[in-house]
This record gives sequence, structure tokens and C-alpha cells, in this order.
Amino acid sequence: MQSSAGEGGEGVRSVLRALDLLALFDDSHRSRSMRELIDATGLPKSTVVRLVATLEQRGLLWSRGDGRLTPGGGLLRWAQLAQDAWQLPPEAVECLRVLSVEAGGESSRIYIRQGISRVCVAQHEGTQQLRHVVRIGAAMPLWAGASGHVLLSGGAAQDLHRAALAAGRGPDFEAVLAERVRRAGDQGWAVSHGEREDGVSAVAAPITDAADRVVAAVGLGGPTTRFTEERVSAFVPVLTKAAERLSDLQFIGGTA
Amino acid sequence: MQSSAGEGGEGVRSVLRALDLLALFDDSHRSRSMRELIDATGLPKSTVVRLVATLEQRGLLWSRGDGRLTPGGGLLRWAQLAQDAWQLPPEAVECLRVLSVEAGGESSRIYIRQGISRVCVAQHEGTQQLRHVVRIGAAMPLWAGASGHVLLSGGAAQDLHRAALAAGRGPDFEAVLAERVRRAGDQGWAVSHGEREDGVSAVAAPITDAADRVVAAVGLGGPTTRFTEERVSAFVPVLTKAAERLSDLQFIGGTA
Repeated sequence: MQSSAGEGGEGVRSVLRALDLLALFDDSHRSRSMRELIDATGLPKSTVVRLVATLEQRGLLWSRGDGRLTPGGGLLRWAQLAQDAWQLPPEAVECLRVLSVEAGGESSRIYIRQGISRVCVAQHEGTQQLRHVVRIGAAMPLWAGASGHVLLSGGAAQDLHRAALAAGRGPDFEAVLAERVRRAGDQGWAVSHGEREDGVSAVAAPITDAADRVVAAVGLGGPTTRFTEERVSAFVPVLTKAAERLSDLQFIGGTA
Repeated sequence: MQSSAGEGGEGVRSVLRALDLLALFDDSHRSRSMRELIDATGLPKSTVVRLVATLEQRGLLWSRGDGRLTPGGGLLRWAQLAQDAWQLPPEAVECLRVLSVEAGGESSRIYIRQGISRVCVAQHEGTQQLRHVVRIGAAMPLWAGASGHVLLSGGAAQDLHRAALAAGRGPDFEAVLAERVRRAGDQGWAVSHGEREDGVSAVAAPITDAADRVVAAVGLGGPTTRFTEERVSAFVPVLTKAAERLSDLQFIGGTA
């Protein structure tokens, strides 16, 4: 038994499951059936029903007339909170700007992990006419792209398993992803070409907290035609330098 | 013991506590110390520490260098989701517009409950030069204002207790609030004058789901000088008619 307060392992797990359930709704999944949620989470029906009811209690999910679930109006509260209260420290903004300049005008950005997604929380848009732009707050799969591999390199084997499963690329993909993630961890950076979107490449390095845990990834993104082997080699030192500066700022996560 | 899936009563409670903890951050509380969170929730320190660590895992809270906690970049994901996916049905938009017109141009809006706050999720701005405008997503206390009383009239005694406590108006306030809430429930609407903001009045009525539970409140708000007894009497029938129409649309919450 956990403590009577009930926020032991099971309580924590329920909170994470509830947040991950909410993360299944995105731009391309604006509504979901109960069946879809059960399939996507792999959780028992009774568990999903309870989690959904709890999220409905706070207005984060709503049941439509046709029985499908949609994000609820309660999310507007978090949207407001994010806009009002969430700000990247000015030093970090400057760091992203310098990185972009030093990388010849490619876009630079920071991703954090959220379940099996990565979320873009900051960006300095590149100056090239053909540039890669991501919306702030946009969620992308963790299995695809250099930033995803860097974020996974700080996670548990189970995270990698879940991320690989979400890719829907068959049973062999987990080993492929594991190799990419291992490499990202070993060399301290990762590169990817067209994994998520054809013709788009990225290089990324980890941002760590005081305990040296990976809490975010900083990356450069642009067209594959400009991410040649030579140019990527030149990006790596400026990128890892930026990652160290951002780590030193200690503005992301970590435990209290 | 709950089921092995662990989303029994304790799991649900943990999820609600985590969401309510997050709701303690707002425009006027952009950062909080661990001590403040413990005091505001009344939960044991060990519980708050665990909940905070869990929210940090998903990037919803971040620890600053000085040890204070702030809303995390992960909220940007929810902001994006709210903007992309959350939409009031066109029939409800029209209903708010008609209500505003029928009430002589006062602003009309819908609030949902979130913990001990009410969140404005939709608004039709009035046409009067002196009008009362609320930001979409703005959170206000549940203890103050007609909409709060209507929302509380559908809740449990414990909710009323927590809402009264949050008012910080001393031990006698709970009885005052209970009386206002009882009256709102009995007559099916509520009126308030200057409870939250001097010179601002409101009238509100409940929006209910198929099981007749209060899931939201629809209200009219404006300057107290225009919310005379005579005018309020004229507002009530148009407001309750709008509340019925909005309830029939079944677009808010309810259980699956």
C-alpha cells in the first residue's frame, strides 16, 4: 500500500496516463471515439472510461452528441495560462538567435518531451528564403527526427518501446530506433533526414538539468539539400555550444 | 484495493489534484513556491512534491533557478490544442448573440467549472459603449458572481467548502455562500452585484446535460447601474430560455 495520501506510484501513473490520453488529441485528431482511445493507449476499457470521466470533470474533454470525445473548453484556461505565464528567459531567446546566425540562417528551436510527443516551445525563425518553420506548441512524434532521438536518449527503455509502437512501422522498427537513440546518446547529438517530412533535415543536441538529465533538445532544421555532411559537421560545434549555454541557464524542468 | 489498473478512486483523485494544482497558477500568480502550493491545497508536503514532480515530467510545470515553480512550456501544447480543436457549435454562438440582443445589448457568456474556478469559454460582446468584457479562457473564483453560484448549485458540499475557503473572507462566509447557492438552485437563476468587481453585475442560469446535471452557466454581465431590479426581471425569462436552448444542444461535457 502507498501512503494514505494516495499520491504514490499509482497516483502518479494515473496523472501521467490522463495527460497522455489528452495528448492523443491534435490537429489531425480533433475528435476520438472511446474505442480509438482504448486502442491508442493499450489500456483496459474500464481505465480509459475512468480517465475520460475525470478529464470531463475539469472540462478538458467533452462528449459530443454522437458519442465522440473532443478537447473541452477547459483547455482555454491552460491556453491563457501558457500565454500569460510561460516565457523563455531573454538569455535563451538570445542563444537561439545566435545559434541561427552561426548556422548560416537556419531555423533554431527547442523541443521538450511530452509523453511520446515532442513539443516545440521556442523558435528563432531562419533568414533563408526557403526555411523550416514550426508552430510554437506544435506536437510531433518522438520517434521521428533528430530532436526526438535526443529526447529519447534520456528516457527509459519503455518510452522507446511506446514511441516505436506509435510509429506503426512494424516490429523491426524498435531496433532501428534504439540504434538511432543509442548513437544520439553516445555522440551527444543526432542528425536526421526526411524522417518526419520528406526533404526536411535536422541536427539536435540535449539540454540537461543540474542532475545531467536530458530535459529538452535544441535543434537546427532546414531543407535536406542544405544539410550536407560538410555543413552538418560545421553545425555540430555551434549547436553543442548552444546546448551547453542553454543547460547552464537551468530554465527547464528538473525536479524541485 | 482498487483494480490492478490503478485508476480507481485514488487514481482519479490524483488526477484531479494534479489539475487543481496547475490551476493555482494564473495571471496574478505566475510563480509559486512549494510552500505556497502546500498552503493553498491543504495537502501534505509529500503529496504536493510528488504531484509537482509528475507535472514537471510532462513539462507542465518548471522549477526556476530560485526554486520557485512556474507554468512550463508543455502548456503550449494545450494552448495549441485549444485553439485548433475547441470550437463552440455555431448554434451556440447564435444563441449567445440572440441573448445579448434580447437583453438590450449586454454581454452574454458561458462559464464552465474547473476546480474552484470558473472559466469563460465563450462570449458575445455587448453593443453598449460601457460594456463588460472578459477574456476567453480567463479564470475567476467560483465563490464570486452569479455564474459561480449557479455552477456551485450543481456541485457537492465539499466544493462549496473549498470555494468558500478560497475567498479568504473568514469562517462565516461559507454560510453566506451556501445561502446564495441554495437560492440559485431553487429559483434556477442567480443575480450578483459587485461581488468580484465593484460596479459589475451579472445574472446567470444553468446549462445542464442529458442527466440534468449542471455542466455550465450562461450569463449576462454589465454595469450595476443598468442591472436594476426591473431590468433583471426582464432578463430572467430570456436568459432561462437561452439556457434551455444551450442545454438542448448537448455540446458540453456530460459523461460518455
